[in-house]
This record gives sequence, C-alpha cells and structure tokens, in this order.
Amino acid sequence: MRAEIVSVGTELLLGQIVDTNAAYLSKLLPEFGITLHYRVTVGDNEARLAEALRLALSRSDLVFTIGGLGPTEDDLTKETVAQVVGDEMVLDEESARQLREFFAARGIEMPKSNLKQAMVPGRGRKLPNPLGTAPGAAFETQDGKVIIVLPGPPREFIPMVNERVAPYLRERLGTRSGIIKSRILRVAGLGESSVEDKVKHLLKNANPTLAPYAKTGEVHLRVTAKAATISEADALIDSMDREVVGVLGDHVFGRDEETLEEVVVKSLVEHGLTLSLAESCTGGLIANRITDIPGSSDAFLMGVVSYSNQAKMDLLGVDEQLLIDHGAVSEEVARAMAEGARMRAGSDIAVSVTGIAGPTGATPTKPVGLVYVALSAENGTVVQKCQFGGSRLDVKLRTSQTALDMIRMHLIHNAT
Amino acid sequence: MRAEIVSVGTELLLGQIVDTNAAYLSKLLPEFGITLHYRVTVGDNEARLAEALRLALSRSDLVFTIGGLGPTEDDLTKETVAQVVGDEMVLDEESARQLREFFAARGIEMPKSNLKQAMVPGRGRKLPNPLGTAPGAAFETQDGKVIIVLPGPPREFIPMVNERVAPYLRERLGTRSGIIKSRILRVAGLGESSVEDKVKHLLKNANPTLAPYAKTGEVHLRVTAKAATISEADALIDSMDREVVGVLGDHVFGRDEETLEEVVVKSLVEHGLTLSLAESCTGGLIANRITDIPGSSDAFLMGVVSYSNQAKMDLLGVDEQLLIDHGAVSEEVARAMAEGARMRAGSDIAVSVTGIAGPTGATPTKPVGLVYVALSAENGTVVQKCQFGGSRLDVKLRTSQTALDMIRMHLIHNAT
Repeated sequence: MRAEIVSVGTELLLGQIVDTNAAYLSKLLPEFGITLHYRVTVGDNEARLAEALRLALSRSDLVFTIGGLGPTEDDLTKETVAQVVGDEMVLDEESARQLREFFAARGIEMPKSNLKQAMVPGRGRKLPNPLGTAPGAAFETQDGKVIIVLPGPPREFIPMVNERVAPYLRERLGTRSGIIKSRILRVAGLGESSVEDKVKHLLKNANPTLAPYAKTGEVHLRVTAKAATISEADALIDSMDREVVGVLGDHVFGRDEETLEEVVVKSLVEHGLTLSLAESCTGGLIANRITDIPGSSDAFLMGVVSYSNQAKMDLLGVDEQLLIDHGAVSEEVARAMAEGARMRAGSDIAVSVTGIAGPTGATPTKPVGLVYVALSAENGTVVQKCQFGGSRLDVKLRTSQTALDMIRMHLIHNAT
Repeated sequence: MRAEIVSVGTELLLGQIVDTNAAYLSKLLPEFGITLHYRVTVGDNEARLAEALRLALSRSDLVFTIGGLGPTEDDLTKETVAQVVGDEMVLDEESARQLREFFAARGIEMPKSNLKQAMVPGRGRKLPNPLGTAPGAAFETQDGKVIIVLPGPPREFIPMVNERVAPYLRERLGTRSGIIKSRILRVAGLGESSVEDKVKHLLKNANPTLAPYAKTGEVHLRVTAKAATISEADALIDSMDREVVGVLGDHVFGRDEETLEEVVVKSLVEHGLTLSLAESCTGGLIANRITDIPGSSDAFLMGVVSYSNQAKMDLLGVDEQLLIDHGAVSEEVARAMAEGARMRAGSDIAVSVTGIAGPTGATPTKPVGLVYVALSAENGTVVQKCQFGGSRLDVKLRTSQTALDMIRMHLIHNAT
C-alpha cells in the first residue's frame, strides 16, 4: 500500500513553522507496511490543494492531509477534499453539539462560521478530535482509495494519529502482509568512508537493507527490514546487527536514540567508577553532555573549564614550565591536565582536552582543529592527537565525541 | 517568480529526521519577492526524483533540491538533475583538489567514489561549499529555468543558503517590488503572558504585524512587514522595534539569531571585564554556551562544575559547615560558590548555580526545579531563588538563561 502526505498551510511555505507533524506520521506508516513515496506541502489555496490531491490519488492508495481544518475562510482542506473525491458533506449533530458546548463553557457565542467544523463526509467517517474543535475525517473515493484529513496543531495532531489513525489503519489493513521496521546502529571512532569500506559487502543486501549516514563525530547505519510480522522483521534486523558488530566490533556503541554520553554514564555507574573532567577547548561541553543524563551524579565528581593558563595551574596543578615549553595546546599539557584533574578530584578516571577551536588562535605550527585528548586512570595516561575540520562548534562537538569514546573504550578494555 | 523546493532523502520519508532545511530556505525566499507554491519530499529514488523535478519545472521558474550530494550510490540528486535538464557534468579540478586535500589532511586515502562530488554542471555554475566535500550547483534548463542543488546536512546547508544562494538570488533578481521581511525581537526575564500583556496594543497592528512565540527561558516577538522595497520594510520594522523597546525596555536583549550568550560575551569584552563560573545543576551548560562564542577567551577565565560536595569545598572553598547546615541547594551555598569562584579566578564577576535538575534528588522541602543563582562582583553578591518546571534539560536550560540574563543586567546597571 502506497501513501502520500499533503501538508496544508501558507505558514509552512513561509518557513514560519517546521513541519514536525509530517515527520511524526511518516515514522508510523512503515509499521503498517505502508510505503510513503512523496510528501507535498501546499499553501491555503484551493486550486493548488485540489491539484496536489488529484496527483496524490493518481499515484497512491492512501492520502493524508494535515492542517486547514480551522473555522476561518483560509481553512479549506475538508471542503476541497470533498470536492476532489466527489462527496457531499453532512452536518454531524454530535460534533455540532460539542462545538456549542465548547463555546458555552467559555462564555462566548459561537461564530456561525465555526459550524463548518462539524461537517463530516457523506461516505467515509469522522475521526473525533479529543483535544480540539475540528474533528478529522476519512473520505473515500469511488474506487476505494482513502483520504484521511487531520488537524494541524501538533497538540491535536499527535493524539489524533495515535488514537484515531493507528486504530483505523489496524482495522482496515488487519494483519496484511508486509511491515517495514528499522533500527539505527550508532558507530564512533571511525569515519564514514572507513565504515562504508568495512561494511561494503552488506550494503548490497536486499532485505534487510543497510544504509550509512554521516553525523558529526559518529556514523549511523540504518538497518531496514521488510517482513510479514514484527517478530520476523526483528529477527532479520537482529541478524544484520550481529553481522555489522562482527565487522565493526566495539565501534558500535549504541542503537536508535542511545547517545554516547548515555552509554558512558551507564557503563561508569555499572562499574562503580568515578569521573572528573578538565576541559579547555570544549569549554564545558563534555560535562554538560554527561550531566544531561539522569543519575550522572553517581559517577561524575567534578569538571574544570580551564580556559586560561592561570586556571590550568591553579585548579589542575599544571606546571608553569610545561606551559612555557610546550604551549597550552600540547601532548604534555593534556597529560598534566588529566593527571591533575584525577588527583584533585580523587576520581578513578579523568579526561582532559586542550586544543584550538577557532576561528582564531591558530599559530604556524598549531592549526585550528588541533586537539589533544588525554585519559588518565590507575594504569597510566594515554594521549590522543586529533586534527578536526569544521566550525568552532564542530571542533567542540567532535572533540567531545572523541573524549566520550575514549572513556567508553577504556571501560570496555580495562574495567572488570 | 515562482519557486519549488524538492527535499531528497529516504530518511525524511521514514520520519527519521525533520526537514528543518526546507523551512529555513522557505523563510528566505519572500525577501526576494519569490513565491513558494509547493514543497515536495521524495526518497533516494531516481525515477521518482526525476518525476518530481519535471513537475516542478513545469510549474515553477526556480527549483531547489536539498540533499543527496554525498559520495555513496544512494546519493543521486546531481546526476538526476543533470539528466532532467539535459546537461553534461564536468569534473571541476579545484573541487577535486580540495577533496584530495581533505582526505590527505586526515591521513586517509580518498575512495574513488568520492570523486563524483567534484562533478559540476557543464552549463550553469558550481556553488562552493565552505564546510563540506560536496559543492552545490546551479543548473540551467534550455529555457532559462534554474535548479539550485544544495547539500542536506544542516551545518553545510545553512551557510550555503546564506553565503551562496542569497547572493546568487540578489545578483539574478536585483530589487524587484513586493517583499516581505521580518525580524525577531528576543526577550528575557519576562514570561510569555507578561510580555503579551505589555505589548497587547501592538498585536492588532496590520503592517508590520507583531506575533509572540514562547521559547524555553525566553520569548520571541516576530515583526513582519510588507513593503515595496527592503528599505521601506526596514523602516516599518525599525519603528515597531522602537515601540516594543519602549514598552519592554532592557528585557529586549537581541534580534534575530543573536543569543543571550553572544550578547553577554560581547558586553563583557566591551567593558574589559572577566567572568568565572561555578556550576552545579547546570553541569557545564553555561560555560559551554559562553565558549560557543568566538573570542570568549578574552573574558572567560575558568569554570568549575562542582557536582560533588567535595568539589564545592576543594575547588571553590565552600565551608563544610554551610553544606551541613543549609544543604548544597541553598541561598548560602550559592553565595559561597560565587564568592569562592570570584576569588579563585580573580575575575571581576562570578556566577554560581546550585539546584535540583531532577528527575531524582528532590526532598520534602526542596522540589525538582528549585534553583539558586548567585552573582558576585566588586559591589557585592546577589542571589536569586527560582522554581522552574519541565524536564531535567528544561531546568538546566532555564537556569542557564537566568544566569546569563543576570550577567547581562548586571553589566547594564553597573558597568561603565
């Protein structure tokens, strides 16, 4: 079954709002085996909306419209859909009563124009809206295609999708064959080309498919399976997951929404280990990411943002001579910062970063993006030298990814 | 002039990412008098992309594509556009050299497949990408229509729109009549209802219009003007800007993309004053926001993320008895943290925060969202008690907004 989404609203075309509704609905459809080939956005214009609907019906079995169900003259989605599918709308007494009650409860007289919100398809059915005055509707064409009409405000749209559209699709499609399910495998410590190279033999697989996406400081591999049932899809995905982990090993750090900081905090807490941080060029970003995770206070003791040389000496005990001899951005200073942080905090592990985030601060031998990341633990200190590209924020983010991944790898290889 | 946007990517149709790029570009077009009638999203599928492009060219003068410029086989936008407009692409030596340098700088051999990113239109022109390996391009049809091809990652897309597309449109369109322009006035330190109440008399204005939007920890007022020329629109906007500032005063802290941290860093640098931070519940977020701003190292000396009581004593000199008597989340400890940070760093100003970000950590007398923010300067220390709602991340963000706004207000009222 093929679907198409038509988002309606001039405010979308003016960029005044971002269409999160369309993304939300898009995510649901594969679970019903429904494939989305197109999404279209049109303004509050009857002729163009009608054209978009006719085109959508010509190439899809199921069309969703989002928005344009309000009481004003601009709101013309339901009327246009009725005209395109050749249906007469009728007044729904229950909706009309609810509308009147809605206004009465607010002590306002209902404007006459609002009554159009109580009009429902002659064929098809209404989809009651638990949180607004505009019910949705499922219109049907003469040849059995369906247009589902939904309200635009996200606080009405999302419950409508969950409580009306999903049950409607479940009822109509039953357990038809064919669902699509996917999982993201999240990879750190390898670049996009290197990941692609290693999983090249899997990228041609027909089912499940595997597709790489580069993110800042990590790579995502999307596994998408088509199957008759959810459990069959899960089995296909699990098997591809194992294949990828077989090739990439510990570089696969998480799945779906799991972040690097979440994995690091969970692992620290599980191992009963504590962490401290000494940040220069990341300016608190690593501490901020760690403390975004609830429960991080069980593992994270302290962070120092040692932006000035004085702070590196005072708060971390970095020897002034090291700063003079090697400069603040150097392997030696990174090492001294990590060891100083570990000693001051009395933590099991300490990580430090020092580098040039840019756009200024570069020297002939130290370009923007040069960063040293050090990890100090009971068994010694290691320092990694990195050269990152991109803007100031990119350098900060990539550095934080590297630092978090060093902690993760350390825990995998050293913690017991 | 009519335009259409074609967003390309299966991950969009699967709802895995929200199309913020299309909204961003949509917002720019009215400034050039360009009307957007349709936006379309298609997956990584050559036939459907070609169909969408042909349809777009049939009804628009200018078509934008977003996404599908990567090095993999899935990325086929440029090739499909070339085929639809009947152009032969050619290898651009400069782009090829930049690609090779990009990989060389990372010590990686360039995969052969990457070279396709250096292909540019035979007619038309390339649009160099300052932040990525995929340049954009402006293709031209035989009858003078244009397809502008842009990369998908927002960190490349946004600079491409600002630095390539806007100048290109300015050059091609000159100053046509009939433009819509808007400006955001950013307000801190007042809630949404309080802002709305104060500007109520301006919300009914026809041109320019004024519309409020609540954001986490700030309120945005959008001023939108319709006029024949940009300078007329600017004059209308300036006049409304003055009206709003007349009512809200110093609470208006910035315009458009200007952030609170940007204003704070700029003001510190202008006054030649230095800052240190002592963060507990924000966990480094304030330091991270400050250090996102280039040049912040001229004003920001150090930050301490004192998550544990031990860190509050060791790094900030907070008296253990204060922690025992009042608890870490108290006016007294906030004050001691700010004064300790100011002394340790030798900074002109120090700000501290201590609170309960949640979801755990609440006590019968100290609920989640209770936060103390203190500012210490030469003329003394002030402490503000706040009770925030929302999630852990909301509490962190609202606290950081309050802290930054306290610095801003301090500089307005005390610095000379």
